[in-house]
Amino acid sequence: MNVVFINPFLEAVVNVLKTMAFTDPKPGKPFLKKRPELLQGDITAVIGLTGSVKGSVAVSFTETAILQAVTNMFGEPVSEINAEVEDAVGELGNMVCGDARRVLESQGYNLQAAIPTVISGTGHKITHAVPGPTIVMPFTIGDSATFFVEVCFENGQS
Amino acid sequence: MNVVFINPFLEAVVNVLKTMAFTDPKPGKPFLKKRPELLQGDITAVIGLTGSVKGSVAVSFTETAILQAVTNMFGEPVSEINAEVEDAVGELGNMVCGDARRVLESQGYNLQAAIPTVISGTGHKITHAVPGPTIVMPFTIGDSATFFVEVCFENGQS
Repeated sequence: MNVVFINPFLEAVVNVLKTMAFTDPKPGKPFLKKRPELLQGDITAVIGLTGSVKGSVAVSFTETAILQAVTNMFGEPVSEINAEVEDAVGELGNMVCGDARRVLESQGYNLQAAIPTVISGTGHKITHAVPGPTIVMPFTIGDSATFFVEVCFENGQS
Repeated sequence: MNVVFINPFLEAVVNVLKTMAFTDPKPGKPFLKKRPELLQGDITAVIGLTGSVKGSVAVSFTETAILQAVTNMFGEPVSEINAEVEDAVGELGNMVCGDARRVLESQGYNLQAAIPTVISGTGHKITHAVPGPTIVMPFTIGDSATFFVEVCFENGQS
């Protein structure tokens, strides 16, 4: 996968979380996802991308991380993953893809984003069903709350 | 959502499961998904769609249903959800969308499908982050093994 696709998503997620959740996520070192290293999130937005390249993006939060983010977003304490939190995760995913798409468009890539699908449930695993590599960008909010952005594009199109 | 979008997916899933898993899924009555009725699957393929309409499709299997289907597909007993099963679910999702897209194309709708993302984990919940309605098509394989196809398209575009 062309590395040109990584940075726009990394920057988008930092910007969106800063603007929407008044938090400053610290990016960790992006890595290549391998099967035995399947990550587990508690709530995930999945967004399909088509156009110049075909791919999928997952923004996956641990419960601690999303409750911290939505507590800031809503301006009141949120103690469990409920319908409002699911909506917020879908919207965050949408905004991250929107931001990244705008940057990629300025670089000559025309991408369309599908409707986000939000998956919740403790410790679900995410696999992108494509032979191409998946890049995982880990982030922390606050002391140790983690979330991940996974980007996967089809081989040969990037 | 235009009902023209429902039948191609219903027929596609029956065809694909028949051809690939030598099983004859019995469709139940499609219904409108409401928040309190969130369905739970054990393994789900999520596929984003863009083009004439923007949407997302989820094909979600209970563990019993997918193990029954892949046991037929692989020609040997499969007793747990592993990496091969995840791949098979992604591929089934791909084929269902491919089939449905061909039918919709013949009706004048041009749709592009993103890469499937597969989510596994007991009892995860699926929400489509869009104000439009989500239609759920329930199916049974054999005596009682169930799976679901959910189709959601943006309001106003269909």
